[in-house]
Amino acid sequence: MARRYDSHTTTFSPEGRLYQVEYAMEAISHAGAAVGIRTNFGVVLAAEKKILSKLLEIGTASEKMHKLDDHIAVAVAGVNSDANLLMNSARIFAQRHALSYSEQVPVEQLVHSLCDQKQGYTQFGGLRPFGVSFLFAGWDKDCGFQLYQSDPSGNYAGWTATAIGANSQAAHSILKADYTEHMSILDAKKLAVKVLKQTMDSTTLLPEKVEMCEISFSNNEDRTVNFHMLLPNELVNLCDEANKSSIK
Amino acid sequence: MARRYDSHTTTFSPEGRLYQVEYAMEAISHAGAAVGIRTNFGVVLAAEKKILSKLLEIGTASEKMHKLDDHIAVAVAGVNSDANLLMNSARIFAQRHALSYSEQVPVEQLVHSLCDQKQGYTQFGGLRPFGVSFLFAGWDKDCGFQLYQSDPSGNYAGWTATAIGANSQAAHSILKADYTEHMSILDAKKLAVKVLKQTMDSTTLLPEKVEMCEISFSNNEDRTVNFHMLLPNELVNLCDEANKSSIK
Amino acid sequence: MARRYDSHTTTFSPEGRLYQVEYAMEAISHAGAAVGIRTNFGVVLAAEKKILSKLLEIGTASEKMHKLDDHIAVAVAGVNSDANLLMNSARIFAQRHALSYSEQVPVEQLVHSLCDQKQGYTQFGGLRPFGVSFLFAGWDKDCGFQLYQSDPSGNYAGWTATAIGANSQAAHSILKADYTEHMSILDAKKLAVKVLKQTMDSTTLLPEKVEMCEISFSNNEDRTVNFHMLLPNELVNLCDEANKSSIK
Amino acid sequence: MARRYDSHTTTFSPEGRLYQVEYAMEAISHAGAAVGIRTNFGVVLAAEKKILSKLLEIGTASEKMHKLDDHIAVAVAGVNSDANLLMNSARIFAQRHALSYSEQVPVEQLVHSLCDQKQGYTQFGGLRPFGVSFLFAGWDKDCGFQLYQSDPSGNYAGWTATAIGANSQAAHSILKADYTEHMSILDAKKLAVKVLKQTMDSTTLLPEKVEMCEISFSNNEDRTVNFHMLLPNELVNLCDEANKSSIK
Amino acid sequence: MARRYDSHTTTFSPEGRLYQVEYAMEAISHAGAAVGIRTNFGVVLAAEKKILSKLLEIGTASEKMHKLDDHIAVAVAGVNSDANLLMNSARIFAQRHALSYSEQVPVEQLVHSLCDQKQGYTQFGGLRPFGVSFLFAGWDKDCGFQLYQSDPSGNYAGWTATAIGANSQAAHSILKADYTEHMSILDAKKLAVKVLKQTMDSTTLLPEKVEMCEISFSNNEDRTVNFHMLLPNELVNLCDEANKSSIK
Amino acid sequence: MARRYDSHTTTFSPEGRLYQVEYAMEAISHAGAAVGIRTNFGVVLAAEKKILSKLLEIGTASEKMHKLDDHIAVAVAGVNSDANLLMNSARIFAQRHALSYSEQVPVEQLVHSLCDQKQGYTQFGGLRPFGVSFLFAGWDKDCGFQLYQSDPSGNYAGWTATAIGANSQAAHSILKADYTEHMSILDAKKLAVKVLKQTMDSTTLLPEKVEMCEISFSNNEDRTVNFHMLLPNELVNLCDEANKSSIK
Amino acid sequence: MARRYDSHTTTFSPEGRLYQVEYAMEAISHAGAAVGIRTNFGVVLAAEKKILSKLLEIGTASEKMHKLDDHIAVAVAGVNSDANLLMNSARIFAQRHALSYSEQVPVEQLVHSLCDQKQGYTQFGGLRPFGVSFLFAGWDKDCGFQLYQSDPSGNYAGWTATAIGANSQAAHSILKADYTEHMSILDAKKLAVKVLKQTMDSTTLLPEKVEMCEISFSNNEDRTVNFHMLLPNELVNLCDEANKSSIK
Repeated sequence: MARRYDSHTTTFSPEGRLYQVEYAMEAISHAGAAVGIRTNFGVVLAAEKKILSKLLEIGTASEKMHKLDDHIAVAVAGVNSDANLLMNSARIFAQRHALSYSEQVPVEQLVHSLCDQKQGYTQFGGLRPFGVSFLFAGWDKDCGFQLYQSDPSGNYAGWTATAIGANSQAAHSILKADYTEHMSILDAKKLAVKVLKQTMDSTTLLPEKVEMCEISFSNNEDRTVNFHMLLPNELVNLCDEANKSSIK
Repeated sequence: MARRYDSHTTTFSPEGRLYQVEYAMEAISHAGAAVGIRTNFGVVLAAEKKILSKLLEIGTASEKMHKLDDHIAVAVAGVNSDANLLMNSARIFAQRHALSYSEQVPVEQLVHSLCDQKQGYTQFGGLRPFGVSFLFAGWDKDCGFQLYQSDPSGNYAGWTATAIGANSQAAHSILKADYTEHMSILDAKKLAVKVLKQTMDSTTLLPEKVEMCEISFSNNEDRTVNFHMLLPNELVNLCDEANKSSIK
Repeated sequence: MARRYDSHTTTFSPEGRLYQVEYAMEAISHAGAAVGIRTNFGVVLAAEKKILSKLLEIGTASEKMHKLDDHIAVAVAGVNSDANLLMNSARIFAQRHALSYSEQVPVEQLVHSLCDQKQGYTQFGGLRPFGVSFLFAGWDKDCGFQLYQSDPSGNYAGWTATAIGANSQAAHSILKADYTEHMSILDAKKLAVKVLKQTMDSTTLLPEKVEMCEISFSNNEDRTVNFHMLLPNELVNLCDEANKSSIK
Repeated sequence: MARRYDSHTTTFSPEGRLYQVEYAMEAISHAGAAVGIRTNFGVVLAAEKKILSKLLEIGTASEKMHKLDDHIAVAVAGVNSDANLLMNSARIFAQRHALSYSEQVPVEQLVHSLCDQKQGYTQFGGLRPFGVSFLFAGWDKDCGFQLYQSDPSGNYAGWTATAIGANSQAAHSILKADYTEHMSILDAKKLAVKVLKQTMDSTTLLPEKVEMCEISFSNNEDRTVNFHMLLPNELVNLCDEANKSSIK
Repeated sequence: MARRYDSHTTTFSPEGRLYQVEYAMEAISHAGAAVGIRTNFGVVLAAEKKILSKLLEIGTASEKMHKLDDHIAVAVAGVNSDANLLMNSARIFAQRHALSYSEQVPVEQLVHSLCDQKQGYTQFGGLRPFGVSFLFAGWDKDCGFQLYQSDPSGNYAGWTATAIGANSQAAHSILKADYTEHMSILDAKKLAVKVLKQTMDSTTLLPEKVEMCEISFSNNEDRTVNFHMLLPNELVNLCDEANKSSIK
Repeated sequence: MARRYDSHTTTFSPEGRLYQVEYAMEAISHAGAAVGIRTNFGVVLAAEKKILSKLLEIGTASEKMHKLDDHIAVAVAGVNSDANLLMNSARIFAQRHALSYSEQVPVEQLVHSLCDQKQGYTQFGGLRPFGVSFLFAGWDKDCGFQLYQSDPSGNYAGWTATAIGANSQAAHSILKADYTEHMSILDAKKLAVKVLKQTMDSTTLLPEKVEMCEISFSNNEDRTVNFHMLLPNELVNLCDEANKSSIK
Repeated sequence: MARRYDSHTTTFSPEGRLYQVEYAMEAISHAGAAVGIRTNFGVVLAAEKKILSKLLEIGTASEKMHKLDDHIAVAVAGVNSDANLLMNSARIFAQRHALSYSEQVPVEQLVHSLCDQKQGYTQFGGLRPFGVSFLFAGWDKDCGFQLYQSDPSGNYAGWTATAIGANSQAAHSILKADYTEHMSILDAKKLAVKVLKQTMDSTTLLPEKVEMCEISFSNNEDRTVNFHMLLPNELVNLCDEANKSSIK
């Protein structure tokens, strides 16, 4: 029965479902996982790189993490070229806001704008939904540290900790059990690595397959907010620890 | 038979029905319920949040309630990203009116404008109807407190008390039995909570699953109209009372 | 056979029929009835409200009657949101004419313009016909009191008395039997109520389900033409009388 | 076989036919007949009104006859709302010509322009042909009195006498037998009524069902050309005579 | 098999054919024939009128012959309304050239332009090919007398003598046998009539069914080129002779 | 299986093929052959005319050869009306270049531009590929004499000698056997005629069926490059020789 | 099952796949292979020409290698006409950047821009994906020598060594085994030839079938970066060596 209604975003099924949007979400459920954790001291994003070849260039632009500016970062699960396009839009939106109002764009305003763009691709003919979910990590002076999750339908919500991509159900269980708002950034990173380790298929977590970034206060005195992409050696330490602890 | 006519909004069935519009309404009948009650002293909107996770951020933007300005609020049942788009339109319409005529937009005028937008998506090819119903609560100096309900077809009407979303039939029965025009705002809130409790599946009403707002006179002297989003502790009290009374 | 030709307004069937237009008319034949009667002294429009709930707001905008200005009123049978859109067009057309020529728009000119708009939706792809029929009551200095009926095809004609919506055949029979051009406005109202009573399913006519308006000379001296929406108590009297007389 | 090629005007059948145009002509063959007769002294158009109700307003705009100006009149067979739209175009074309060249538009030029518009609806996608045939009666100083017939394909030709709509074959037989170029306007009217009587189903011709107009010299001295719509009493006389003569 | 590829001009069949263009040519093969003959002294076009009724107006615009200006004439086989539209284009093209360059448009340039327009309707979606073939007769100072034939595909070529429409194969045989470049205009006319007689079904050629025109030098002294449409009596003589000679 | 993917240029088959482009090439494989040979002294193009009738005008514009300017000529295989359209584009492109840069357009730049236009018709909906292949012969001061072949996909390449249209495989075999870069223009012409003779079905090569042109230095002193279309007597000589030699 | 979802890029399959993009990649897997190797001293691109005829012109524009400027080169696998179009875009993008910012475009910025263009053709109706993969070799002052691979989806990534087109799996195996970052440009060329030899079907590598270019420092003193297209004799040497070594 579903077959009659599942080929266009402009057709509701008799149960009121938009199958094309659900199929786009299915695409994301096979993508490498991404985890986000917001604590009182910052936000951590971590993601699993699906493709791994020793021939891949280390240190070129990440396909899973996008820095929009010092205060907003995005983790991606799904079709990378779709994500690139939306990141272009997001950067332009952020720059326009900065130019017009001489302040950094509030995080939710950026998320809202990007989700409206996604929504349009679920209601008009001759288009397909964007096959990509996002985790937005950000900080602004009104709302502090924030974490948002958006999906292909254009829906979004604020979360304290969440995961998208493969095995996101399992990831949520771990996060529910271990997350507290008061955990340090370091603990958040450890938790993120633990979650990724569970959602991956392999028993050992390879640091080359992990990307992680944080948005946090650079130090406790001037409280400047900084984006920091974790370096390979930082990831090695985190992964080693995770691999050890899971043996126990 | 229906199958031949149910995939486009540009096709009437032989009985003169537009199935796509009906399917969009079906989508809404599975969404979290929203209740609206207009009394002589103000309007109350209450809604049930469908997704509940302890990881969801408390205090970020509500997905069920939208404040358009101090005099108009909207409760949503259906696809959130569709609702967000229409809320953008509504805010722009309200701001334009305020700028052009130096007065707040009359409530029905705003509703009418939004419904015309909805209607267009039921008559032109390459589009689908908006999968969302609204309750508009508002006040203006000509018509006082008002409550409107609109659906995906673009039809709307004024109500004293009504409900949209899951189990709206049951909700209407309770409202018909208990509603009087002269009830206080507090009684209206209690009634709204009672209605939500009935339309939900669980036997106990969790305050975390409820969102409620009121538009009422701030006090009896200057008669300024204010939008007030109920705080968690206010919701806890209302829910406790509802849970107790239902035991009896 | 019909099935091959009935899904687009841009396809004639081999017998030269446009099924989509006929299906739109089918939609109207299930809508609440509307009656119009033109006498030498004015025009009366009456309509049946289909939805009845004690929770519906009394006194908000009618969904069956639209006042375009003091000299033109419209009764609707069919999809309300479609009608709202066309009423917007009609009001703009009337205002433009008044501005350009400093006179009220002649009634037929307005009807003609609206019907051309309807016609377009029966000839171009990617559209559906408007699912709504209208009764136009009006007065202008050249043609006096007039009554027009239009349907989804964009066809229209002038009538002395007519009915649209459910059971319009039965309504026509009563009108043919009882109508005279010389009847007073009061008699026209009584006849309209009688017709509605016959076309409804219930044996007793509830005044809450009736809407009625008249366009007539305000008094016999200055012969100003006025639009008057009947008040609830006026309707109660008319309905009581109709209910009594039918018992006899 | 025809079925594969009969749903779009943009598809030729293997035999080179455009079925949609033929179906539109089929629609016209069920419409009320219209007759045109050109003599040396003027042109007469007559038509049968299909819908007859004592409730229809007498004296409102004819649906079968359109006066474009004093020198050109049109009789319609087919979909009235389609005809109305084309008549709008024709009036604008005639007015533009009059404004640009300070002379009345030559009859054939007007016909040609309208037929080009019709042709376009038989060659482009997303459209249907106009479901209407016309008889154009006119006079201009170069070609004198003229009569043209056009059909949904956009083809047209000049005729001395012709008929469109129901039973046009039978009508042509009578015209061939009785027509002479030298007949008086009165004889032309009698012939037109005779033709209509044959093409209708009923044995007696009701004057209420007939519309007739003439374009002729107002008198033999100044030779001004005038449009004249026949009055009810003129029609009664013509019909009576026709009914009598057929009894004989 | 052909069925899968024969409904759009935008689809090649596996053998590389465009069926819609071939179907349009099929339409032309049923149309009244047209013959063109170029000699050293001028060009003759002749055509058969398919519809014949004594009620048709004699002397109104020909449907088979179009005079573009004194130096170019066109004979048509196929859908008349399609031809009318292209003739409009051709006249505008010719006028523009005359205005821009102060000289008559060269014949082939006009043909080329019209054929490009035809080609467009065989390559873009939402259109059908023009269902019409043309014979262009013309003269210009560079190339002298010329005769071109174009078909619905937009292909064209120069011919000394050719025929389009019904039985064009038979026509070509006669032309091949009888044509010489040095024949007089009168002989060319006789040959054209002879060809038409063969391609028609009836045994006797009625002059009312023939249209003929010539483009030739008006006299041997000033060598002005003129368009001449043959008068009825000229046609009668030609036809009589043809009917007699065929009896022999 | 192919059938599911072969009706649009916007659909890849599962094997990554674009069937519509292949079908367009199929159309060309039935068209009259064209041969191109580049030597150190010039380029020769020769083509076979498919349609042959003694009624065809000799000396009107060739349908197989197009002179773009003195330095570039094109031979065509496929749909002539498609070719005409592209030749228009090519001429405009060449003229624009000449105007902007005061030099003749380099040959490959023109070829590239035309092929981009062809490519567009293989990637966008509502279009079909151009059903035509080209041989471009040209000279420019940077690259000297050049010969390019392009097909409906928009692919092109430089060749020393090549053939398009019917039996192009057989043509390539002869060219591979006989071609040398150092052959004289006369030998190139003889080779071209030999190739055409093989690709045609008939045993004797009729000079009327051959078109040939060369682009070469006009003489050895000033080295001006000239376009020369071979005259009938030149073709007769070449064909006679070919017919004789093949008898041996 | 796949068949229902595989004909448009605007339709996700239930598993979230875009089949049209996968089919476009299938097209590339049959195209001639291309290899890219980045070392610390430069980047080497090599490709196999699929079509080989002694009649093909040597020294005209390569169909497999495109020089964008002295610092960026591209190797192509797939549909050449698609590649040409994108190369036009790339050159314009590079020129615009140079004009606006007076510096050479950074390599990844160019790749990103081209991939956004590719992405658009996978999300909008009425289009097909570009059937082409690219290897980008480049140098800029921030990132040094770089090598990127992009596919029809618009995804791209940085690689140290990679291959596209036929047998790219086998090519990757060899590259993984033999590649080191510190190998000289000459060794990189030898490795590229070795890879091509393995991916081709024939046992002996013909130098005519290979195209190769390098982007490297022109000498060790001024460190200017140069594009160099390998000359035939350079290729002969490399191929000879490869053929010999594989015999061993």
